[in-house]
Amino acid sequence: MIIEPLSRLAFKPFGDVIEMDGAELININQNFAQRFNNLASVDVSTHGGAVNISLAAAVPRPQPIAITMMERHPLGSQIFYPLEEGHWLVLVCTNPADRSTFRCFQATGQQGINYSRGAWHHPLLVLKPQRFFVVDRQGPGNNLEEVALPEAFSLIA
Amino acid sequence: MIIEPLSRLAFKPFGDVIEMDGAELININQNFAQRFNNLASVDVSTHGGAVNISLAAAVPRPQPIAITMMERHPLGSQIFYPLEEGHWLVLVCTNPADRSTFRCFQATGQQGINYSRGAWHHPLLVLKPQRFFVVDRQGPGNNLEEVALPEAFSLIA
Repeated sequence: MIIEPLSRLAFKPFGDVIEMDGAELININQNFAQRFNNLASVDVSTHGGAVNISLAAAVPRPQPIAITMMERHPLGSQIFYPLEEGHWLVLVCTNPADRSTFRCFQATGQQGINYSRGAWHHPLLVLKPQRFFVVDRQGPGNNLEEVALPEAFSLIA
Repeated sequence: MIIEPLSRLAFKPFGDVIEMDGAELININQNFAQRFNNLASVDVSTHGGAVNISLAAAVPRPQPIAITMMERHPLGSQIFYPLEEGHWLVLVCTNPADRSTFRCFQATGQQGINYSRGAWHHPLLVLKPQRFFVVDRQGPGNNLEEVALPEAFSLIA
């Protein structure tokens, strides 16, 4: 599987890329700070949901990485923004039963993503221990759908 | 002014401290990640507001730091989480006209804060260039109130 660089345009079918490059820039704090504004659409209020602010600490999986399942959140969007430098992987698809719909992106340590509500994605794929800031949904209802792939495959990163 | 270490308990009158220490911990992603869950109360929906996801890049002010004003956001909470290691300062008060109500906290590079809606605070105070992940409010209404202090003072950090 080709690993593509992460960009707003390429990732658009799956959600938002959160990065400073190309963002609307506002000078704030008496010019002692710049704000890169409005970088993601948080969509969590379906069925009485609310924002959940969390931190995550991920560790690498053994290489080659066995891809056996995908997941999605039918009730809310989900942001992961890295808190350490270092590349990490973002594996998504539009149909878990169709390998040709899978895309794998390499994100930098200064790129986060927001999975749109319902976008199929793999759990965090890091290449070293890495922490993330997480913005997703809490509230009533089942917000996690997992599927086993009809045929597992491997990623070498 | 005494600079205190930042802790959930000490900061409680002003908002939330976002950190892994002491948080509810959930194993996720087939045990390849841990989630430190539900760390801040996002309160942005007043008067038709919505979540705004931004990044900020702050630079240090000249030392000693002249404190001449404070600000608050009457319509929404505001999160800053650091994206680089390094201590930074969090200056808050309950009454800008009363110096005895000011508190200055030293946050680590692994501690973020969520200013409660209406909590008086100073704009970002960093000791080196530092980026932040920001979660606050967008929407109708005036969400910024700034006041000049009756008597300016200096912070040495």
